[in-house]
Amino acid sequence: MSKRVKEILSWYGSENPGTLGNLARLMNHGRLGGTGKLVILPVDQGFEHGPARSFAKNPAGYDPRYHFELAIEAGCNAYAAPLGFLEAGAADFAGDLPLILKLNNSDSLYSGSDPCPAVTGSVNDALRLGCAAIGFTIYPASAHRNEMYGQIRALAEEAKAKGLAVVVWSYPRGSGISKEGETAVDVVAYAAQIAAQLGAHLIKIKPPTAHIELDAARKVYEAEGIPIGTLAERVLHVVQSAFNGRRIVIFSGGAAKGRDAVMEEIRGIAEGGGFGSIIGRNSFQRPKSEAIDLLHEVMDIHAQHA
Amino acid sequence: MSKRVKEILSWYGSENPGTLGNLARLMNHGRLGGTGKLVILPVDQGFEHGPARSFAKNPAGYDPRYHFELAIEAGCNAYAAPLGFLEAGAADFAGDLPLILKLNNSDSLYSGSDPCPAVTGSVNDALRLGCAAIGFTIYPASAHRNEMYGQIRALAEEAKAKGLAVVVWSYPRGSGISKEGETAVDVVAYAAQIAAQLGAHLIKIKPPTAHIELDAARKVYEAEGIPIGTLAERVLHVVQSAFNGRRIVIFSGGAAKGRDAVMEEIRGIAEGGGFGSIIGRNSFQRPKSEAIDLLHEVMDIHAQHA
Amino acid sequence: MSKRVKEILSWYGSENPGTLGNLARLMNHGRLGGTGKLVILPVDQGFEHGPARSFAKNPAGYDPRYHFELAIEAGCNAYAAPLGFLEAGAADFAGDLPLILKLNNSDSLYSGSDPCPAVTGSVNDALRLGCAAIGFTIYPASAHRNEMYGQIRALAEEAKAKGLAVVVWSYPRGSGISKEGETAVDVVAYAAQIAAQLGAHLIKIKPPTAHIELDAARKVYEAEGIPIGTLAERVLHVVQSAFNGRRIVIFSGGAAKGRDAVMEEIRGIAEGGGFGSIIGRNSFQRPKSEAIDLLHEVMDIHAQHA
Amino acid sequence: MSKRVKEILSWYGSENPGTLGNLARLMNHGRLGGTGKLVILPVDQGFEHGPARSFAKNPAGYDPRYHFELAIEAGCNAYAAPLGFLEAGAADFAGDLPLILKLNNSDSLYSGSDPCPAVTGSVNDALRLGCAAIGFTIYPASAHRNEMYGQIRALAEEAKAKGLAVVVWSYPRGSGISKEGETAVDVVAYAAQIAAQLGAHLIKIKPPTAHIELDAARKVYEAEGIPIGTLAERVLHVVQSAFNGRRIVIFSGGAAKGRDAVMEEIRGIAEGGGFGSIIGRNSFQRPKSEAIDLLHEVMDIHAQHA
Amino acid sequence: MSKRVKEILSWYGSENPGTLGNLARLMNHGRLGGTGKLVILPVDQGFEHGPARSFAKNPAGYDPRYHFELAIEAGCNAYAAPLGFLEAGAADFAGDLPLILKLNNSDSLYSGSDPCPAVTGSVNDALRLGCAAIGFTIYPASAHRNEMYGQIRALAEEAKAKGLAVVVWSYPRGSGISKEGETAVDVVAYAAQIAAQLGAHLIKIKPPTAHIELDAARKVYEAEGIPIGTLAERVLHVVQSAFNGRRIVIFSGGAAKGRDAVMEEIRGIAEGGGFGSIIGRNSFQRPKSEAIDLLHEVMDIHAQHA
Repeated sequence: MSKRVKEILSWYGSENPGTLGNLARLMNHGRLGGTGKLVILPVDQGFEHGPARSFAKNPAGYDPRYHFELAIEAGCNAYAAPLGFLEAGAADFAGDLPLILKLNNSDSLYSGSDPCPAVTGSVNDALRLGCAAIGFTIYPASAHRNEMYGQIRALAEEAKAKGLAVVVWSYPRGSGISKEGETAVDVVAYAAQIAAQLGAHLIKIKPPTAHIELDAARKVYEAEGIPIGTLAERVLHVVQSAFNGRRIVIFSGGAAKGRDAVMEEIRGIAEGGGFGSIIGRNSFQRPKSEAIDLLHEVMDIHAQHA
Repeated sequence: MSKRVKEILSWYGSENPGTLGNLARLMNHGRLGGTGKLVILPVDQGFEHGPARSFAKNPAGYDPRYHFELAIEAGCNAYAAPLGFLEAGAADFAGDLPLILKLNNSDSLYSGSDPCPAVTGSVNDALRLGCAAIGFTIYPASAHRNEMYGQIRALAEEAKAKGLAVVVWSYPRGSGISKEGETAVDVVAYAAQIAAQLGAHLIKIKPPTAHIELDAARKVYEAEGIPIGTLAERVLHVVQSAFNGRRIVIFSGGAAKGRDAVMEEIRGIAEGGGFGSIIGRNSFQRPKSEAIDLLHEVMDIHAQHA
Repeated sequence: MSKRVKEILSWYGSENPGTLGNLARLMNHGRLGGTGKLVILPVDQGFEHGPARSFAKNPAGYDPRYHFELAIEAGCNAYAAPLGFLEAGAADFAGDLPLILKLNNSDSLYSGSDPCPAVTGSVNDALRLGCAAIGFTIYPASAHRNEMYGQIRALAEEAKAKGLAVVVWSYPRGSGISKEGETAVDVVAYAAQIAAQLGAHLIKIKPPTAHIELDAARKVYEAEGIPIGTLAERVLHVVQSAFNGRRIVIFSGGAAKGRDAVMEEIRGIAEGGGFGSIIGRNSFQRPKSEAIDLLHEVMDIHAQHA
Repeated sequence: MSKRVKEILSWYGSENPGTLGNLARLMNHGRLGGTGKLVILPVDQGFEHGPARSFAKNPAGYDPRYHFELAIEAGCNAYAAPLGFLEAGAADFAGDLPLILKLNNSDSLYSGSDPCPAVTGSVNDALRLGCAAIGFTIYPASAHRNEMYGQIRALAEEAKAKGLAVVVWSYPRGSGISKEGETAVDVVAYAAQIAAQLGAHLIKIKPPTAHIELDAARKVYEAEGIPIGTLAERVLHVVQSAFNGRRIVIFSGGAAKGRDAVMEEIRGIAEGGGFGSIIGRNSFQRPKSEAIDLLHEVMDIHAQHA
Repeated sequence: MSKRVKEILSWYGSENPGTLGNLARLMNHGRLGGTGKLVILPVDQGFEHGPARSFAKNPAGYDPRYHFELAIEAGCNAYAAPLGFLEAGAADFAGDLPLILKLNNSDSLYSGSDPCPAVTGSVNDALRLGCAAIGFTIYPASAHRNEMYGQIRALAEEAKAKGLAVVVWSYPRGSGISKEGETAVDVVAYAAQIAAQLGAHLIKIKPPTAHIELDAARKVYEAEGIPIGTLAERVLHVVQSAFNGRRIVIFSGGAAKGRDAVMEEIRGIAEGGGFGSIIGRNSFQRPKSEAIDLLHEVMDIHAQHA
């Protein structure tokens, strides 16, 4: 095992060998295996945004097997999806790549100002499907955040006892903050900290903007002169906010966009010390060969900063 | 076993032989046995709408044995009902046809804008009554959807471990959408996707209309030119939305209506690749011989597209 | 469902519809379906006698799939085997025929005068493998009989609660009786009674000889002039001993022998009112086509007495 | 994944994706990865024979880390050991190779004619230590065999539900057979069959000799002319006895011996279609470089027959 | 924390921080705190030998508080006793020193050739009494060894999950070996290995004699020329036998004896690399000041070899 992966594992000293082994599986698989960098394919958009919005652009994606194949062929570190999508392929692709079972999901048919996902899977589901980790979304800033925090607390405790890793999607959203605030650098840094404090091993956040949402925070950012001018600076700050870089922080790719825009963002993340990317719509909504090409370029950028 | 049934079973590779066997039982029974098409008789209207609204038109239906007989004589693949109706006939008709125990039901004596059924049965009830599957209704778009999703998650995990199949009625309803939106094509497709992601083996939805409810979805339907002009086109789309046709999707018959209207709808469903129909009021509210005649015609249409 | 099967089900009035349904599945499957007669293929000899003694004569039988195929192609009512043999085929043949999971088995590498099988499966195993029934061997006359009776008591209670049928192999053996006594008519009749009293739905015994083992019994047989001269008379008596024929009693085929000897025995069983046969070595140790031919003849004889 | 590994996985159709994935991990790791052949390092001799007898010859082996290193450097498919040895290294070597937790062990400070190991670990231990499989020893022919069979039954059911693979060491021993009989071809074939029927995924047996222990078996071997003259012929027979080769059967290396004797035996195993070897004393009692050299030669022989 | 204690903790990488912290508490308390050496006061003789044999010589020892005071005043690392003795003082001395709850004990009112202690406490008892560790005695060589091994397996799993350390008294005794064999060097080394493989963190054994009990072992000791002439050499060997010194091995003081004899033994243990002593009768059966003086000298000898 590479020195870097060993070093990263050393940050998780409270975990049992089972969990450490699954963290190692996540870091050692695929094209970035051993670098300590990760690119993960997540496909929960069918549940979150509906099938047409997710898959009509590249209809191959309606088929659950497609995403397993895409993740394998592109050499992603892992594939993350809700129960149904994993059940529909886990036997056919058993042993082919690390899987992450998303244990909660929100649909868009009902939406209030304060989101709260439904719990849609269990730790035992993750074991029977052969997953390396559970995934869970929290929405800090939602009036229902405590319910989510309580759920992930219980699920993470069980997952860790059974040797699984814990991945938390930390997306501030809800009546506590503005729309712009969802990606504000102070809020994203705070979201990373909350996930880390909840015991996440891997934290997924959005690339932070230069906006500062909270007045109390702004004073400190200004007083201490925290650099937040470039994306790389902001990524450096949010990674520092996740236990001084001793938790794996990866960044979402966000809404589908042009390839140049994707790569520019990845470069900022990589320069700032981000541990990798989790690229959903920007990969599976492109034709497969184009998606693999894009994912490879993303991986190459991260690899250059390993 | 027919090649088609074997093919359909191959989509459920994560399930144990018990669950596969019960899926096979559902597909191999009755006049459509072996075709991969299903026509199921559901009778939960007594609970859902009250007895007079349900049974006064054809008073034979007050008797729980009547519906077993109807389903058997018509050659349905299965009969689905709440606990009481099954308890009242399951011994007399043991072994005569596959049963589906509806594990939740809503009555109409209290109704808010956001429905949430009561859990009225258990997986162990399904086992002691000899059922092949559990049934469960979710109401995406209800403020209480997460409670339902959480309930079916736990029930489905238990059912699968004990070798039962899982049938989900996915009926968007509630304050998240308009009345017209309940059968909008984008919403119905989304409902099929949600049920599939929750781990349903069989998904029951309503025939979709050409209406599009969600603005975010409309953009995609227009941009990608998804054909939704005819019922067949819409059915094709919603079946695709359930894992590219790798989950069994059947369609409800809806409110009682004229025979021609029924058949026109069935033809659209069959042409679009629907896996079958679940016909309640349009069968049991007719005199038995007429109902059987109608069901046979429905089966024949589906069989022609097998 | 046939009148005869309905009649037989009526004898099991304490059972829930799940168990009744599984009894019906056993009686309704295969060439004898609906007659109330059963021919079952049991293959536990690999465990009981070792692989070479069981399969060398017809090496196709080393393969677990072979026995599923044989049972299916011959139109047997069910196939009974230990855990490993069922696990090795239950998914591939899901839904193809009723299965019986043998929950205890004895090997021949250790043998004392008082046999006691090991428990090798569970009721939950039977559910996850999609079985219609559990099977269990008791050895009345063994010093360890009470341990076996206690095990089947608990397993049968659980199986009945979960809707499964219970098949008991009742083979008197052990230090309580002589070798000849194992098939003595009084002992076999007693074994049938014990299994029935333990709550078995289906009882498997050996064809009884005219020998009487127990002195206390002999007096009665003589005093009452119970006819035991022919096999048919003895079968009539042992079937009567199983609740006056209100429990399904089937007869083992015993060691491999010539076809004529098999058929003569079957005719005696059928004439005496036996419910069928469970034919292992005499079928799977013959080439498949010959075995199917033999099984068909056995079935035909039973069918003539239905 | 290689075609051969996919083929082998197809034999285990009743298992969930978690168990399939762990079987794949075992087959895909190390120098033999992907060939469908396995060489496993087992080190339970410290418990079974005592420390000096096990490690004095190569004192590096007193250190638990040594065996992890040996297995990794030699490119073994997996390392199997009791609780203490795995606890002493599982964190340091997390993710480095598949582990098998031996769940029962016998020491030599008390020995009767009928061995019965103690249960020394649990399925949850296997999960927290990150193991791919549980291991368990049965001693057919011991008076206590039923206790062992009952223990592995329960442990295997739990392991399979939680996505682990099950490895059974099947070593006939005890008052039921002679010393010579422990490796008799009929007994070893029977031992393989018993383990397979108990639901083992991987079966470890001893290389069989030409001796036949049981009279009842001898008749069949002679009557059917089963070739048992060479080790390759005997291996062919015992592999056939494990579900016609549809269960993975590997062979123990036995007591320490000269390199030539080891290789001759391996060649016989490989020619006969054995799936691999489990080499303990013949590897860890040699200096490390010599052991690796020996293991590589063993692997090469197996690879030539893949 | 001292470098040595850190080093020792690094050997227990599979344990959670709670268990590591309690191991550290044991090593950091008292006069030997931080040296990696331990002297523990055990008082279970009241249960094991009866009160008069244990306490009449120094009647202060009848009072449970006396032993807490002795251990505290002497600066022992910990005090180990059965449930009653700890309950009688744990509140008064809460926080004063680490406690070890002995979870099993044998009395002398019944004695067979094969001892098997009773389980007299639980892991929850240990938690509520504020203990740092559980203690458990195994008797390898007893016919009942497997029962003890199974008990400590379950108790250790629970203790580790709840953050406690596990101390195993490994005393070969029973019909498997001779009386002299109980302290034979091969047997003591084996006993240390067994305790380590069962997952003990701290192992308590008896000082080994030069006798060799087992023929199979003697061959190896002679062939490999393992030095066992002096106590120091034998201690070196048994410590090596406990995972090459990577498990803490401490030595019992045995029956009460003269001070010179005690010290000579301690010097041998210390020179051989033993981690410390557990001195019961030789301390609490002396007047307190004398006992403290003796314990201090024991500690000093161990400290000189730290």
